[in-house]
Amino acid sequence: MPRLADHEQRRRQITDAARRVIVDGGLEAVTFQTVAAAAGISVRLVQYYFGTKREFLLATHRSVMEAAGARFARRWADLGADVTPREAVRAVLTELLPLDQERREEAIVLGAFGWANVTGRGIAAEETFAAPRALITLVADQLRRARPAAASGDAELDAELVAMAVGGLAQGMLQGYGTAQSALALVDHLLDRLAVPKNFGG
Amino acid sequence: MPRLADHEQRRRQITDAARRVIVDGGLEAVTFQTVAAAAGISVRLVQYYFGTKREFLLATHRSVMEAAGARFARRWADLGADVTPREAVRAVLTELLPLDQERREEAIVLGAFGWANVTGRGIAAEETFAAPRALITLVADQLRRARPAAASGDAELDAELVAMAVGGLAQGMLQGYGTAQSALALVDHLLDRLAVPKNFGG
Repeated sequence: MPRLADHEQRRRQITDAARRVIVDGGLEAVTFQTVAAAAGISVRLVQYYFGTKREFLLATHRSVMEAAGARFARRWADLGADVTPREAVRAVLTELLPLDQERREEAIVLGAFGWANVTGRGIAAEETFAAPRALITLVADQLRRARPAAASGDAELDAELVAMAVGGLAQGMLQGYGTAQSALALVDHLLDRLAVPKNFGG
Repeated sequence: MPRLADHEQRRRQITDAARRVIVDGGLEAVTFQTVAAAAGISVRLVQYYFGTKREFLLATHRSVMEAAGARFARRWADLGADVTPREAVRAVLTELLPLDQERREEAIVLGAFGWANVTGRGIAAEETFAAPRALITLVADQLRRARPAAASGDAELDAELVAMAVGGLAQGMLQGYGTAQSALALVDHLLDRLAVPKNFGG
């Protein structure tokens, strides 16, 4: 019987391979065969660790979400206690945009899962809403911190706007629309329009 | 030799069938066989009208864009001359959201083409940028009309924000996020945040 650490490592090897298959060929390219080939292991071993395709797709989705979450948490910790709400929101949004290879691949994989929901071959359904919901809560909290005098309902609606705009922006960038510079300019413009001050009290 | 009208009608029959195949199974479901079956004609006939798969995918993309463009033009004409810029922008954005079956199917098909660009199996590439570019120009024009005193560059950036937000909103709705009512509330909130007055001069 393999040790738990080996078990986890092997599962990780398989979900990493599934992730690469999705980046290269979309969700429809994922089969026991393609993932086994990408991981350099046998089809039987993939089947041993994940009984069904749905199971390893869910595990892949979860592993990409966890990796993104961990990167997020590091970025958040790096911000320190003195960060302004605007800097905090800007950091979070920047982390979501496909500005380097890692974030691009992440956006492609999560986008593929989201798109599968649209065409009725959804794997993760409700799971894919967890991230936007968490983003909206986080942004709304920062907006309330930035503009304590504003109506609280405005923070929620503003945060939803932010989530929609950044979702659309990420999607556009993946398709080749715009540049990193124009994307960041758009994020700043959005924060200006939401009257998020550059400094506390300013 | 078939008359031109018959020829056009037949091509339309085929691109309509391709559209239905995409709505049901995504772009990867499209083959000469599936489209012929959906159109109720022979594979040979599809091949006679469209030599390659790429050709009829392009024709399908174009036919969906044309149908959307025609619906847009009708909506625009219905607005009349006295329409405020805000009403005009609101009408255009509403027309883009998947609020009924027709617009939902349109958004799915155009989304499928856009997504294919991301995963490198793009069919329409530059063609898929035509619609967002046209939208940005139209919205920027209306924003300038609504806020003649504002800096002109702001209208461009605001229009890009609108396009991104509505793109993200449409994508979210397709995945089952939110309701028609919450989507329209978000559009209104966006126009408020861009300081688009409800009336001329106010």
